[in-house]
Amino acid sequence: MRTVAMIVSYDGTAYSGFQSQPQGQTVQDEIQLALQRLTGEAIKIDGSGRTDAGVHAYGQVISFVTESPIPMKRFAMALNGWLPNDIIVRSAHEMPAGFHARIHAVRKTYRYSITTGKYPNVFTSRYRFHHYNPLDVDAMRKAIVHLLGEHDFSSFTSAGSTKRSHVRTIHEVSIEQDGEDIHTFVTGNGFLYNMVRIIMGTLMWVGEGKWEPERMPRVIEAMDRSQAGPKAGAQGLTLWEVGYPEPFSQWLQIDPANDM
Amino acid sequence: MRTVAMIVSYDGTAYSGFQSQPQGQTVQDEIQLALQRLTGEAIKIDGSGRTDAGVHAYGQVISFVTESPIPMKRFAMALNGWLPNDIIVRSAHEMPAGFHARIHAVRKTYRYSITTGKYPNVFTSRYRFHHYNPLDVDAMRKAIVHLLGEHDFSSFTSAGSTKRSHVRTIHEVSIEQDGEDIHTFVTGNGFLYNMVRIIMGTLMWVGEGKWEPERMPRVIEAMDRSQAGPKAGAQGLTLWEVGYPEPFSQWLQIDPANDM
Repeated sequence: MRTVAMIVSYDGTAYSGFQSQPQGQTVQDEIQLALQRLTGEAIKIDGSGRTDAGVHAYGQVISFVTESPIPMKRFAMALNGWLPNDIIVRSAHEMPAGFHARIHAVRKTYRYSITTGKYPNVFTSRYRFHHYNPLDVDAMRKAIVHLLGEHDFSSFTSAGSTKRSHVRTIHEVSIEQDGEDIHTFVTGNGFLYNMVRIIMGTLMWVGEGKWEPERMPRVIEAMDRSQAGPKAGAQGLTLWEVGYPEPFSQWLQIDPANDM
Repeated sequence: MRTVAMIVSYDGTAYSGFQSQPQGQTVQDEIQLALQRLTGEAIKIDGSGRTDAGVHAYGQVISFVTESPIPMKRFAMALNGWLPNDIIVRSAHEMPAGFHARIHAVRKTYRYSITTGKYPNVFTSRYRFHHYNPLDVDAMRKAIVHLLGEHDFSSFTSAGSTKRSHVRTIHEVSIEQDGEDIHTFVTGNGFLYNMVRIIMGTLMWVGEGKWEPERMPRVIEAMDRSQAGPKAGAQGLTLWEVGYPEPFSQWLQIDPANDM
């Protein structure tokens, strides 16, 4: 038995999210089906976390155990041969027994991408939220820094959250502007249900001038969903990277020459 | 009656090409359906040319006549409201009566995009041909310049071509490298069926070192399809821009502030 971790990209447009569920096709279903075809085994995979319907991933991490003797350096390409074009395994790594993609994850980065301007770009619109008018990116930058550090993020989670604690730590935030595209990166030790999308809906209200950036601390302190902005669309969100502590992180390095 | 021209982008992945045909959904069908819903009229559109199944467009130009009184500055956005997400009208222009997107086109630019490296990028793979190994871009540049000028391009068209003359003039060629992405731009007064894809299949053989760049003139002179390389995949091809002579070109300017 070997424990394997893989770094996986997917275009979530066509899927009902990452995790298997009674209704709709999911990314997990597709990967498990491809693993079965490749190895002949019924393998259950674990992801670092769920992503919702229509949300994408650049660096999702999955783990599973297998009896397959396929060498690691061939495993990713072999599995890609069985996967649909909108799911790509970027790398495969043999891990110490017991490694679990969700339990051992200590850090996640999400990217949220917005495009402004009258018309979206047809070649990137699957991965961008289209905001018809320009946004004040400086105001958004002033607002987002208030998220840094440890806070109760109850204002930024949907009513259905079943998490025992809404306290999370945000380590890094940044907003990059590239022409009419605005990419926001948020890194934290964990995220509540819909947290990044509600943060982004709130930030867009700041960018529109509807709210001052200085309102952000009050929104956080309220610990009340109704005090934050709307939930931004799923298509702008990408699970960008997942971090693991030593010693796991040393096995999860992507060879840059093999990656995009 | 007004004559209208529109500049249209589309992701051709889901379509059986631009032009209406007995089998399969086409870009033309979608635009005509959206125009009918918007204006109530059964409008037939003309494109600057066909694009094949799976081929994309950034700057396809269409023309049609309509009784609709919708102001031009609102026409594109109104039509986008009825179009699927993979087709976007970038601008609408009222043209002199008699303008025809195909008949008056004098110049076309195609882009062909390749990505090299072990794995494709899931976010751009719909618009790139994936070539697993690196390509010698300098050799490809040395080969492609031989296409410049007026030639009989019979070596670069599929056997089924019904065109009376295979003589075309190539005005400009360029190859841009961006990391593992290679974008080739070819501008000419017109293109034969599959011409750009066969040029690219030939160029990839040069890039692989299978053929010397100096073989290109002999391939052209042969005027024989069997002397050129294979036809490259449709997904890498994008109709980039269509040129019109004065006075039409003055009405077909896109306001950059409204475009991506």
